[in-house]
Order: sequence, then C-alpha cells, then structure tokens
Amino acid sequence: MLLYDYFRSSAAFRVRIALALKGLEVERRFVHLLRNGGEQKQRDYLAKNPQGLVPALQLDGGVVLTQSLAIIDYLETIRPEPRLIPADPVLAAQARAAALVIACDVHPLGNLRVGAYLEKKLGQSEGDVLVWRRHWMRLGFEALEKLIRPAPFCFGREPTIADVCLAPQVFNAERFGVDLAPFANIRAAAAACADHPAFRAAHPSAQPDAAGS
Amino acid sequence: MLLYDYFRSSAAFRVRIALALKGLEVERRFVHLLRNGGEQKQRDYLAKNPQGLVPALQLDGGVVLTQSLAIIDYLETIRPEPRLIPADPVLAAQARAAALVIACDVHPLGNLRVGAYLEKKLGQSEGDVLVWRRHWMRLGFEALEKLIRPAPFCFGREPTIADVCLAPQVFNAERFGVDLAPFANIRAAAAACADHPAFRAAHPSAQPDAAGS
Repeated sequence: MLLYDYFRSSAAFRVRIALALKGLEVERRFVHLLRNGGEQKQRDYLAKNPQGLVPALQLDGGVVLTQSLAIIDYLETIRPEPRLIPADPVLAAQARAAALVIACDVHPLGNLRVGAYLEKKLGQSEGDVLVWRRHWMRLGFEALEKLIRPAPFCFGREPTIADVCLAPQVFNAERFGVDLAPFANIRAAAAACADHPAFRAAHPSAQPDAAGS
Repeated sequence: MLLYDYFRSSAAFRVRIALALKGLEVERRFVHLLRNGGEQKQRDYLAKNPQGLVPALQLDGGVVLTQSLAIIDYLETIRPEPRLIPADPVLAAQARAAALVIACDVHPLGNLRVGAYLEKKLGQSEGDVLVWRRHWMRLGFEALEKLIRPAPFCFGREPTIADVCLAPQVFNAERFGVDLAPFANIRAAAAACADHPAFRAAHPSAQPDAAGS
C-alpha cells in the first residue's frame, strides 16, 4: 500500500496513527500542501484524489481510498487487531461520535482552504482567521470534554478511533494557541496518546517531510 | 428508541432515511432549531447532546447517541439488513468516503451556526453567506461526481451510506440554488433516492414538524 501523506495534515496524522497501532507498513509519497502552489492541486494527485486533500491510500491493486475515517475503517477490516472500534455496539457508537465531532465539526472548519477563502474572498485578516479556528476548536472541545471518559484513553485502557482523531486535533490546538486548561478529560487522553509509541511514531515532528519545513 | 429530530436538518434526515430503510420504528421528539432562540441550545437538550446539534438517538436504556454517522453505524450493527455498508471492504471504504465528503467537507461548512458566525462576527451579508454555502457544496459535488458510479444508487442497485448522505445534501443544494446540471452522476443517484419509499418517508416535507414552518 502507498500512503499519500503530509506531515502536518491532521487527517493524514490520523491514518499514520492507525497504521502504526496496527503494525502495518506502507510506502509513502509526500504531498506538500504549501509548496509548488499546493502539490495537492496538481493534476497527477487530483487523478488519485479528486478532492485534492490528503491523505489517500493506494491499495496494491491500484484502487485509491480517500477520507481518513473511511481509510481507518478499511484498515480495521483488513487488520482487525488491535481494535480501534470497540466490540460493544454502544461503546463503538460513542467512540465513533467523538471521532466525528472532530472530523466533521472541528477539523474541516480550520483547514487550509477554508482559511484561504476567509482571507482572500471575504477579506478577513490573518488574526480573524486565527480567532475563527480557535472558536471552532474550543466549541468542539467543550462538547468532547463531556463525551469522553478517559481511562486513560478516551474510552478505556486502549486507544480507539476517538484517540486517533483527538491527538492530531490537540496538536492543532497547541499550534494555534487554544488554551486546553478547561479540558481535563481531553488533556488526560491526549497525555496517554503522547506516551504511546504508535502516536509518537506518527507525530508530525517525526516525519521525513517535516525536515526543513 | 427516541429520535431527537428536526425536519430540515440534513444530519437528522440521514438518520430518518437509515431508520426507514431498515424498517426501524422510533419515537420522536422535535427540536426546533430556529424557535425559542434555538431549542437545541436549551439546557434539557444540551444534557442529552452537549454539542447542541440534532439528531440524537436515545436508546431504551437511556444512553444518548450523537453524530448521525455514528448513529447509522450503530443501526447497522443492531439491524444488519438491508446493509448500508457494503460487505466488500473496498466498496465499503468507497461508500464511506463518499458519505464523509458530504458529512465532513460540505455539510458542516454550510450549517446554521457557521452562517451565524459569518454574519454576526465577521460582518458578512446574507448574500455572502449564500455564496459561501454554494461554494463548498459545489466543491464537494465536483469531487463526489468522480467518486460515485450510480447504478442507479451511488454504488449499485441498493442504497448505501453514500446515498443516505447524498439525498439530504442534494435537498440542501436545491434549497440554496446550487445548479446541479454539471453533476450527472449525482443527479442520477439523487433521482434513484427520490423514487425510493424510505427516502420519501424521511423527506423534510413529509415530517410532522414541517407543518407551519
């Protein structure tokens, strides 16, 4: 399998965590979102992923899978252990919901192309965009804080899909200066992730394409 | 089970479609997003769903599930037939990805609270917000058009999670005046959905809380 990756993309970070947790090795190709006018917008990449977003996972047969959460569900099917979706249906729904709070209601509002629209088309300043990003992160975290119950991971002693989404979002929150002090549960789960070798191996700072960026 | 519902919420519409496809009956309570300052922001509802979004599904034991896609995966577990997630892992990943293009990268950018932020905090006009909504829908549809292969539903002869997300988004697109002419695949799949009794039963115009709204 071949992962189209970018060190700072939090959706790609999720997939790297899932791969590392499951002990799956993949080849990687790096798509730099800021260089060359955005490599994700180049024709070759758009032929792989018409959304022009990372990550994308090319299977050995050539099929390309997109959308980090769909890729993670695929990995869960081909390599069921360790489970990222709990076996209990209610717990599974709760872990998925926590993941989706981030993947639907926080992350897309803060991504590059949305920031670019706010600045270029709506004439907002860089500062306004920062306030916007922090706003949606804080709002998402306020809900998430009540939805998870760290022990020490979001839903128990092992990481689930919720932690796979949480750690990259916490990385973003720190990068954009969101104060995590009010979020004890989130900090506890994020600390458990930060101590876990799979999360460390997947961290943006540990990626080859981070060098010189 | 008890569904917290609002006729025009496209996330609630998804869950109604899934329930109808699976022949599951639920009680319903209506949460009007525009009346009484937004009933989703009232303390009673926030105790059910700290995000203050619809839908939410309360199980008979009292546990409340949130996030439409997590709820649909739960329904898939408790009532596996008819399948909304294809059995083939690659097809499953493709159907999930199409659903997530809508659920992550289109729908959240166009929802009420984002429109309110753009108007109230960023001083954008109603017209600017309309252009913004159309922009993200069009961008999502351009990718989706290439990701689905209607026959006649998005991924074959029966609806999947992709159709469950597509039909509500097409409803929104029509409501906000997005021209669907360039999107032949999307129109084909949406037409198949519009003909299907479960999608008709779940349609906003067929809901009791639509009356007088």
